[in-house]
Amino acid sequence: MNYTFSSFTDGLKSSAVREILKLTQGNAVISLAGGLPAEDYFPIEAVKEAFERVFQTGGKGSLQYGLTEGYTPLREAIGTRMAAKGVTVKPENMLITTGSQQAIYLLTRIYLSAGDVILVENPTYLAALQIFKASGVQVVGVDADEHGMLMDDLDAKLAQYKPKMVYVTPTFANPTGKVWSLERRQGLLARCKPNNVLILEDDPYGEIQFDENASYPSIFSLDEHPEGSAVLYTSTFSKTVVPALRTGWIVGDSRVIAQMAKAKQAVDLHSSTLDQQALYQLLTHFDLDGHIRTIRKEYRSRMELMKSLLQDARFADLKWSEPQGGMFFWVELPESIDASELLKKAVEKGVAFVPGVDFYAENPRRNTMRLNFTHTDNASMKLGLDRLAEALAAYKQNA
Amino acid sequence: MNYTFSSFTDGLKSSAVREILKLTQGNAVISLAGGLPAEDYFPIEAVKEAFERVFQTGGKGSLQYGLTEGYTPLREAIGTRMAAKGVTVKPENMLITTGSQQAIYLLTRIYLSAGDVILVENPTYLAALQIFKASGVQVVGVDADEHGMLMDDLDAKLAQYKPKMVYVTPTFANPTGKVWSLERRQGLLARCKPNNVLILEDDPYGEIQFDENASYPSIFSLDEHPEGSAVLYTSTFSKTVVPALRTGWIVGDSRVIAQMAKAKQAVDLHSSTLDQQALYQLLTHFDLDGHIRTIRKEYRSRMELMKSLLQDARFADLKWSEPQGGMFFWVELPESIDASELLKKAVEKGVAFVPGVDFYAENPRRNTMRLNFTHTDNASMKLGLDRLAEALAAYKQNA
Repeated sequence: MNYTFSSFTDGLKSSAVREILKLTQGNAVISLAGGLPAEDYFPIEAVKEAFERVFQTGGKGSLQYGLTEGYTPLREAIGTRMAAKGVTVKPENMLITTGSQQAIYLLTRIYLSAGDVILVENPTYLAALQIFKASGVQVVGVDADEHGMLMDDLDAKLAQYKPKMVYVTPTFANPTGKVWSLERRQGLLARCKPNNVLILEDDPYGEIQFDENASYPSIFSLDEHPEGSAVLYTSTFSKTVVPALRTGWIVGDSRVIAQMAKAKQAVDLHSSTLDQQALYQLLTHFDLDGHIRTIRKEYRSRMELMKSLLQDARFADLKWSEPQGGMFFWVELPESIDASELLKKAVEKGVAFVPGVDFYAENPRRNTMRLNFTHTDNASMKLGLDRLAEALAAYKQNA
Repeated sequence: MNYTFSSFTDGLKSSAVREILKLTQGNAVISLAGGLPAEDYFPIEAVKEAFERVFQTGGKGSLQYGLTEGYTPLREAIGTRMAAKGVTVKPENMLITTGSQQAIYLLTRIYLSAGDVILVENPTYLAALQIFKASGVQVVGVDADEHGMLMDDLDAKLAQYKPKMVYVTPTFANPTGKVWSLERRQGLLARCKPNNVLILEDDPYGEIQFDENASYPSIFSLDEHPEGSAVLYTSTFSKTVVPALRTGWIVGDSRVIAQMAKAKQAVDLHSSTLDQQALYQLLTHFDLDGHIRTIRKEYRSRMELMKSLLQDARFADLKWSEPQGGMFFWVELPESIDASELLKKAVEKGVAFVPGVDFYAENPRRNTMRLNFTHTDNASMKLGLDRLAEALAAYKQNA
C-alpha cells in the first residue's frame, strides 16, 4: 500500500511540547515544559466522591449515550458559575467539549475555510496555531505590547486582510503570561463587531490569578447578550479541577453553538457523559472556589520561587516579566542563543522547557523559551534551574 | 453580527436519529430509533469498581494529562483481545478515540480531500455519510445483495471513480443487519489493495453475534501484518460495555495511525484518561467475554420477540430478514409508503423509528425503516409494535 494523505496533515507538526513530554516520561528529566497543573493539589477525594455519587444517583441510566450538546445539568451549573461573573448564558448558548482544545477546533471547522485570514497575538498558543495552519487558514500576527494587541496595528491588519476571526487569550496568555488591559479588550471588541469579525476568546488560565482582588472582565462579558455577540468564549476545568476529565465548554450566540454541535455530532457524537456527570456532581457538592483559592496561593508561591531563582546571577542576561497568573514565565535569551539548540543541551543535563519558536505565527524569535512553574515541586524546581544554568553555560562555552 | 459559516456546515444535517432521540427524551414515546444498548444489562458494578481501582492504584497521577495515542496499558489490553481473534497489533498500530465515530472522522480528515471519491454500501451508517459529505467527499454507492457488495459493480466503480477509500461495516451492518460472506470480504481486499484503495472496516456490532459458533473474520484479519495493510479497522466498547465511556479504537499501519494521532492532538489533545484507565481496569478484572455471552443471549431473545411480532398479520406487507446479530431489523414497507411521513403518525401514536432515507448515499428508498430491538424491554416492544401497526393503518386510511 502506498498511503497518500490530505493537505490537513501538511500543517500538522506534532507539538514540540508533547514530543518533549514523551521524551521525558518516566525518566529523570525535570520538565518545565508542559502546561501541567500540580498533581499535589488535585482534589482526588472530591473527584472520587463525585463518581460514586453519579453511580448512586444515576444508576444504569448514567452509563447510556447522552446529548451532543452536553449533560444539561452540567451546562446549567456552568451557567450559574458564569452568572456569578456577570455573564448570563442559557444552555442553548453552550456546548460541552473535550477540553477547550476541541472548542477551538470545532469553531475553526465550521467558521473558517482554507484561504480565510485569522489574526492572532504573536506569539500565541501553539496548538491553536496548528489547527489554523492545518486547516489552510492564513494566520497573521498583530503587534502587541504588555497590555495586549496594539490598536493601530490591529486597525491596519483588519483593513489589509479582512480577517474572519481574531483569536486571543487576553488573561494570562500562553506563552507570554500577559494580561490585556480593559481598554484594549474594549478596543478589540469595538473594532471587530462592526466589521463582522468574530472574536474567539480562549481563557484556560483566567481563574489562576495571583491577586485575589484584581478583576479581569472577559471580552465576552463586555459584549451584549450572547445572541448576536461578536465573541465566542471558551474555558476548561483542566487547570482548576483535573485534566483527566477533559471537560471544556464554549459559549456564544446560539446559532453558532448549534452549528458547532452539529459538527461535534459528526466528529465524536458527544464527550464522555460519565465525566460530565461527575463534574456536575463535583460542582454542586465541592467548594471549587475554595479549591481555586488554594491553588492560586500555591501556584503563586511556586511562581515566586522561580522568580527568585531566575534573579540569580547565572541568569543575568535573561529578560522576563513577573506573571500575574497562569502557569508560565516567558523568557527572552540573549540574541545569540537558539532555544531549540539550548533544549538539546538542557535535556542532556536533565531539564526540559519549550523553545518559543513554535508559538509564533510569523517572524519567530528563536531566542525565547517558556518555563512552567506550576508542575514541579520546590526541590525539583531548584534542581531544574541549576541544570538550566549548566546548560546555558555549556552552550556559551561551545558557541 | 452576521455569522457566515464554512462549507463544512453545508453537508451537516443534524442526524434524524438524534433529533428523534431529543424528541422522545423524557416523554412516553417508545423509541425503536436509536442504536442504544439495553441499560438493564449494563455492568454497573464492574464499571464502579473499575473507577474505584483507578483512584486506588493510580492516585493523583491518574488525573493528569495523558498521551494523545491513548493510555498504553489499555492499548496493550485491546491488543491482547484482538490477538485472541488472530490479529497481532502493537500499541503503535492503535489509536484510542472518543468512540469509533471519532476514528471515522479522523481518518477522513487526514486521508480524504474535497473532491475525492469514497465507495460505500448503499444504504450505510448515516453518521459516516455525514462526515464524508460535510468534508466535500463524493460518496458513491456500490450495489449489494445479502452477502455484501457485488464484485462486478465494485470492479466497475473502482475503474470509473478511482476512489481513495471504501467504507464498509461487513458484520451486522447498520442499518441492514447484513453479514458479508468470507468470499466477498476476500474479494474486496483483493480488489482494493493492488489499487492502493484504503478500506475502512467499521465494526461496532461484530461482538453481538447470535450464533456462538459462527465465525466472521474481519477483513483486517484477512490482510497481512498491520504494516502496509490496506485496512484500517475500528471498533468500540459502547455496545459491549457502556456508551458513556465513549471509548473506541482504530488499528492499522503505524504511519496512518501516527497521522491520525497528530490530527487528534489538534482536534482534542486526547480522550478522557479516566475513562481509559477505568476501561483498562475493567478489561483486566471483569469477565467481559462472559458478559458479552449474556448480552448476545438477551439481545437474541429480544430479536426473536420482535421477529414474532413482525410476523403478525398486521405487518404482512412488510419485508425483512432475520438479523444474525447486531441491533436492528431493516424493514421494507410497501412502495406507496414514505417512512418519514409514517414516522409523524407513529410519534403521534407513541412510537419512534428511523426512516431509511438518511442511510442512503444515493437513490434513497423512502419506503424503508430501521427498527432497534436491543433497547426496549418486552412489554414496551409489544406496545411499540402495536402502536406501529396503528400508525400504519392510519397512514393507509389517509392515503
